[in-house]
Amino acid sequence: MKHFMTTALLALLLSTITSISVAAEHPLPSWNEGPAKNAILDFVAAVTDKNGKDYVAPAERIATFDNDGTLWLEYPMYTQALFAFDRVKELASQHPKWKTTQPFKGVLEGDMKAVGASGMKGLMQIIMATHSGMTAAEFEQEVSNWLATTKQKKFDRLYTELVYQPQLELLDYLRANGFKTFIVSGGGMEFMRPFSEGAYGIPPQQVVGSSVVAEFQVKDGKPALVRMPKIDFINDKAGKPVGIYEHIGRRPILAFGNSDSDMQMIEYATAGEGRRLGLFVHHTDAEREYAYDRKSHVGTLNKALDQAGANGWIIVSMMTDWKTVFPDR
Amino acid sequence: MKHFMTTALLALLLSTITSISVAAEHPLPSWNEGPAKNAILDFVAAVTDKNGKDYVAPAERIATFDNDGTLWLEYPMYTQALFAFDRVKELASQHPKWKTTQPFKGVLEGDMKAVGASGMKGLMQIIMATHSGMTAAEFEQEVSNWLATTKQKKFDRLYTELVYQPQLELLDYLRANGFKTFIVSGGGMEFMRPFSEGAYGIPPQQVVGSSVVAEFQVKDGKPALVRMPKIDFINDKAGKPVGIYEHIGRRPILAFGNSDSDMQMIEYATAGEGRRLGLFVHHTDAEREYAYDRKSHVGTLNKALDQAGANGWIIVSMMTDWKTVFPDR
Repeated sequence: MKHFMTTALLALLLSTITSISVAAEHPLPSWNEGPAKNAILDFVAAVTDKNGKDYVAPAERIATFDNDGTLWLEYPMYTQALFAFDRVKELASQHPKWKTTQPFKGVLEGDMKAVGASGMKGLMQIIMATHSGMTAAEFEQEVSNWLATTKQKKFDRLYTELVYQPQLELLDYLRANGFKTFIVSGGGMEFMRPFSEGAYGIPPQQVVGSSVVAEFQVKDGKPALVRMPKIDFINDKAGKPVGIYEHIGRRPILAFGNSDSDMQMIEYATAGEGRRLGLFVHHTDAEREYAYDRKSHVGTLNKALDQAGANGWIIVSMMTDWKTVFPDR
Repeated sequence: MKHFMTTALLALLLSTITSISVAAEHPLPSWNEGPAKNAILDFVAAVTDKNGKDYVAPAERIATFDNDGTLWLEYPMYTQALFAFDRVKELASQHPKWKTTQPFKGVLEGDMKAVGASGMKGLMQIIMATHSGMTAAEFEQEVSNWLATTKQKKFDRLYTELVYQPQLELLDYLRANGFKTFIVSGGGMEFMRPFSEGAYGIPPQQVVGSSVVAEFQVKDGKPALVRMPKIDFINDKAGKPVGIYEHIGRRPILAFGNSDSDMQMIEYATAGEGRRLGLFVHHTDAEREYAYDRKSHVGTLNKALDQAGANGWIIVSMMTDWKTVFPDR
């Protein structure tokens, strides 16, 4: 038994070494040569060089990524909102009043203007109606079913296929260099966890996001976590560094976002001592994805664009810095 | 460079294999032979056997441990409370009213009866006065300084040396078998994180506990997290499964506690499908540590002791199951 284990392990480890070496020769193949790719390669080389002044021990190599618009598509509407709208339609027969009450009426009639007019309060009503009142396991199943069956219109692909190929390579490259990769998103933690491991190689415990209050209840003799209609935490803007403190307990040395909502996370990460790297995806590619920034209703990138130069933040242009946007079919 | 990396990595990996093999021959040396040790060995063998019916994929091998009384000493008073009392004494000169106001008066005069009489409300006042009002970095420094200099009286050792040797071996053994090990404690998350990696090999992001509200503020142009005088979450009793949901997002397959406060965590873990293991440390050793259970003011173990048999929970007797209690000096 011992001999068998040793041989099997050795084979596994040798294959790991080989793949690390191959990847190390040409990292980030979907990134075009240029200042953004160079900034990443230089940074990783510096913090992993044991003899360099910028060396960072592996335990401190924490990298945090926003999700919507940074790791996957968010335009023209956040995927989680689309999930919530579809849930409203599914649940409508149990809630006859929704036909005449905003913002539900707007969702049922496809009147996004009315939904938008209901503001943050309306959106929260939709989230509460669709994200609570069930067990954790039931919600996970609902999310998984929806993601497995719902296609994005412009690209006619599942949302989990509309992740950014260059970012998948970056996540792998960071992990191969001893980093721990985390999602730190304004989106719902429990909406992301069912797909984060499969899509990004990021396990649930490394996904930080917004959440509703959960309660431990024993139902029919079986203990379960029940999702309550109450916001627990909004992991957005100044909430992101707080979420990082609560869930990670270490300041990231690399943080990657795409909107002004990521500024505090990137400020917090890059203000730490030693070498740091802050980056923003700039959605400049109307053909291969979408082009939007300062005045967009989702993923607004305005202040960060103005302040990037002075702060040394890297603006990654989707059009010029990425050779490919989505994984091949 | 490539050749060098391969050779160095290979040497490292080979030494890992050797140490795994050696440890695999005699795991858990500080555990006496008996039903508790057998239950652990059988469980780990079953969930790691790829051809067995109880196999669990590595990603799902989540083990959660309470901290106080499960991984380190908690008697006659929780270490964090002693830290808070010492902080009250240090801060007293800035708070002249404390000399005449309970529960602070009681702490300053060493009158634990008066402190106890102030109840949970009094304890919360002490925690708020000593655990908030500073940045995250300042608090971490205070905790680290205190732990580096304060000795437990009976054993004349630092608290970080009063961790349980059999549990250190168990944590290592689980990790060597592909488990991820987490702390899930009623204690303060940010009190534990400064020492959890050094003491247990558990990094901050795998420490779940109670917390105060934190706020992101820019102070003197520098972004910082400031600890506020408000409880965010009490990760105890029915809060433990909730903390697990929020921080881990997966149901543990092994959970280890020592008091009735751990029952819900262990209920939740052991009620999952497939093979599960729930364990409690029973403090039965007045000579090598302390003997306390049903009527103790800390770490009360009463209901769980009654219900263990029917639920298949393992009661680990410190006196009979552990060959050693603390690491050698």
